[in-house]
Amino acid sequence: MTVAVTLGEIAQRFDLRLVHGDPALPIRGVATLAHAEATQVGFLANPRYRAQLDGSRAAAVIVREADAAGMTRSCLVAADPYVAFAKVATLFERLPAAASGIHPSASVDAGAQIDPAASIGAFCVIEAGACIEAGAVLGPHCIIGRDCVVGAQSRLVARVTLVQDVRLGKRVLIHPGAVLGADGFGLAFDRDHWIKVPQLGGVIIGDDCEIGANTTIDRGALGDTVLEEDVRLDNQIQIAHNVRIGAHSALAGCAAVAGSAQIGRYCLIGGSAGILGHLSIADRVTVTAMSLVTHSIREPGEYSSGTPIQPNRQWRRNAARFKHLDEIARRLGAARKENPQ
Amino acid sequence: MTVAVTLGEIAQRFDLRLVHGDPALPIRGVATLAHAEATQVGFLANPRYRAQLDGSRAAAVIVREADAAGMTRSCLVAADPYVAFAKVATLFERLPAAASGIHPSASVDAGAQIDPAASIGAFCVIEAGACIEAGAVLGPHCIIGRDCVVGAQSRLVARVTLVQDVRLGKRVLIHPGAVLGADGFGLAFDRDHWIKVPQLGGVIIGDDCEIGANTTIDRGALGDTVLEEDVRLDNQIQIAHNVRIGAHSALAGCAAVAGSAQIGRYCLIGGSAGILGHLSIADRVTVTAMSLVTHSIREPGEYSSGTPIQPNRQWRRNAARFKHLDEIARRLGAARKENPQ
Amino acid sequence: MTVAVTLGEIAQRFDLRLVHGDPALPIRGVATLAHAEATQVGFLANPRYRAQLDGSRAAAVIVREADAAGMTRSCLVAADPYVAFAKVATLFERLPAAASGIHPSASVDAGAQIDPAASIGAFCVIEAGACIEAGAVLGPHCIIGRDCVVGAQSRLVARVTLVQDVRLGKRVLIHPGAVLGADGFGLAFDRDHWIKVPQLGGVIIGDDCEIGANTTIDRGALGDTVLEEDVRLDNQIQIAHNVRIGAHSALAGCAAVAGSAQIGRYCLIGGSAGILGHLSIADRVTVTAMSLVTHSIREPGEYSSGTPIQPNRQWRRNAARFKHLDEIARRLGAARKENPQ
Repeated sequence: MTVAVTLGEIAQRFDLRLVHGDPALPIRGVATLAHAEATQVGFLANPRYRAQLDGSRAAAVIVREADAAGMTRSCLVAADPYVAFAKVATLFERLPAAASGIHPSASVDAGAQIDPAASIGAFCVIEAGACIEAGAVLGPHCIIGRDCVVGAQSRLVARVTLVQDVRLGKRVLIHPGAVLGADGFGLAFDRDHWIKVPQLGGVIIGDDCEIGANTTIDRGALGDTVLEEDVRLDNQIQIAHNVRIGAHSALAGCAAVAGSAQIGRYCLIGGSAGILGHLSIADRVTVTAMSLVTHSIREPGEYSSGTPIQPNRQWRRNAARFKHLDEIARRLGAARKENPQ
Repeated sequence: MTVAVTLGEIAQRFDLRLVHGDPALPIRGVATLAHAEATQVGFLANPRYRAQLDGSRAAAVIVREADAAGMTRSCLVAADPYVAFAKVATLFERLPAAASGIHPSASVDAGAQIDPAASIGAFCVIEAGACIEAGAVLGPHCIIGRDCVVGAQSRLVARVTLVQDVRLGKRVLIHPGAVLGADGFGLAFDRDHWIKVPQLGGVIIGDDCEIGANTTIDRGALGDTVLEEDVRLDNQIQIAHNVRIGAHSALAGCAAVAGSAQIGRYCLIGGSAGILGHLSIADRVTVTAMSLVTHSIREPGEYSSGTPIQPNRQWRRNAARFKHLDEIARRLGAARKENPQ
Repeated sequence: MTVAVTLGEIAQRFDLRLVHGDPALPIRGVATLAHAEATQVGFLANPRYRAQLDGSRAAAVIVREADAAGMTRSCLVAADPYVAFAKVATLFERLPAAASGIHPSASVDAGAQIDPAASIGAFCVIEAGACIEAGAVLGPHCIIGRDCVVGAQSRLVARVTLVQDVRLGKRVLIHPGAVLGADGFGLAFDRDHWIKVPQLGGVIIGDDCEIGANTTIDRGALGDTVLEEDVRLDNQIQIAHNVRIGAHSALAGCAAVAGSAQIGRYCLIGGSAGILGHLSIADRVTVTAMSLVTHSIREPGEYSSGTPIQPNRQWRRNAARFKHLDEIARRLGAARKENPQ
């Protein structure tokens, strides 16, 4: 059942230079240097794994030009070994072979439009006005609400909910438990109680976006929440109403973005980071894990907040001092004035 | 298909004073000042958008009395423009018209009690002892476990799970992916391994609460987890066993509340904030985003923890010093003693 | 319908010493000291509840030997009262009586293997190559993907998704909304856009693990993501690809662990804590709530980061100083050099 291609075919297909290797060798998979067997291809992207090169049983190792020089073992030379590895690995993916058509258990409204070349899984619910384009694959238990569009070749792995007015581009990949298009958190305080502010907008997801398991993206209050193309969201992320995320940005797990924040292109947002609402972040900004962005960031670069992890006893003493940091600084200022040199 | 009412009807219905406007003008929606078309109503609540007033094409703008004075464009005067806007916007909501009755695909236990005026969606599962009151609407894929109550006029948008012993009040709104009544995280350490502490309580949700997508509220260990009326929870929030949240409090996305914490009335908890267990927070406390509450708070007011976001290079230097803050403070104290004035 | 056992039977069954109590007294439940009725058993584990002992109406109170001395009320003496309470409480749990067999609405692939002594709930989907062992109970709406194994006596409460290549041990308990085996967040940056790195590994969950509601555990990129036996995960936790968590460790709600991190045995990770990728944490490490682990921890003990919660006005002044902490420390160093004693 495992795919087999030869080392030579891999080199040719992905435009890699084969050094010291037997082009006829059959390859059956990819692996880390440490665990590769003699029919698997490994890779060296992170220099700290270089020590594992010699001991690796891999049929060939994908390396960059500089690392290939002087190498006596079989390797495949790539401009970017991690990118090359990602491409080679796709040969060994076992993607579900989804047959076109609608599973007999699915509940499809007569007012929905489903391309004959789409695949609709067990117990899916497709509501009126929804449109599922050619090649789209919906795994079991997906709910596609009113007036939603699932673009061509998109894949909703299983149990994905598009509540209402959500439009996915092409080749969008969404993992189980994600909810797109739920109401944003809009409240107005009316003397002594809350009243709900109707959420009337939608969600627009660009081509080639990926959205992680149990991630939530709310519909806009007025206007839409937008992910431009090739935005990558990990699991458990919260995107509030009317947020806009620029193309090619990636957010790691548990990040949270508050309402109407604007994130630029090519940004990297670390895990569990928070971004407050109604601010904007420039292109190519990196925010490190668990940092909180409280104001707009206008310059590209890396940004952080928080304090370093320490043994609790030391941390407690320092944290207690933080509560008086302003006073400490004032005392220091006073001391300097009292002792002018 | 769009609703149309006149500007005069809106003024009358919501008790707003129309200034400079044509009462006969048909209105077809609401919008932001920047995007409003000539048949839409806008609003000015946040003063920093005042500059957009002149350029807005809105048929009328909801403003407060002070802003209306001297205005030459059409406006609707309100005591609280955001509240008035929320009410006007409800005219243009497209809520799903849920027919009463049980979808033929739903799985309903003979021991469940479902009001004829309730609506049960596709693939719902209703277990024994559950009670669904009049006017309640369950979207597709909801699971209502044993002995749960869904109060009158409540709406579970889709894919909501009430595990067991969960009682919802009236007009409760729950978004997809929420899980109420799962076991609390109760563990006892028995020499060299964990044993599970049975979770025997339930969940009580007051009238008019709203619960966001993928939010979780655990059942009590002994006794119940309680949200009083009009509590508003955003997405991805975690409420542990035996927490009690007072009426009219609101928690933003990704907040987490540990076991047996008591939160007062009219509290505002920011996004990604954390509240430790077995403590209590007074009424009218605000906790800012990503702050961690580690002890009880007895006075109303605003509370924060954390450090400001900075360019990483500067942050690193400051963070390194934080690790020695106690020592720095001691040195400063010593320096002052050595140089007494 | 409530179970009744006598106080004497409880003492005998759990090897507790009954003092001053009537062994024939029927017991109908467990409760806190404050709320116990005359037919319920209470417990005293946390000394700060000792004041409630005298007023409690409990039929008997589980206490440790030291607390029993001199007590005139009925009690059950235990080496560890909380452990004993957990065991006694199991008598009063109402676990769903799941009949063996497959609910007629479930969708089961012909290539799946289901033990006749397993129970498959409404609308479950079991894909080819899946194996459900004896005594396993799947509540409604579970999805068991290709080549997944649900070990004997495991219980998936409802709406649990195992995407692919997930192997659960015996007696694993998983709460609603959890997603195991979704793709890890693997991306390679190819000049100007992301390409997806195929995720080819699986997930292995040891015996006796518990996994909370809406928690996500991704499949490995190469190799597996592993939880050893008796690992306990609360709700809303994110476990990235290729993480390994040692036996008997427990993580509280909203914790997040990045890719390839290794957590030792008997670790305790607080709520909303973050652990960066490619690092390792020794056995018996405690990380307090909302702390961020940025480097490996080699020694057992308790670790923390962050700053204490304060009234916002004070916090603002201190936080502003944090931005200049390095400069403050430098000035202090300079001041000391200028005034050498």
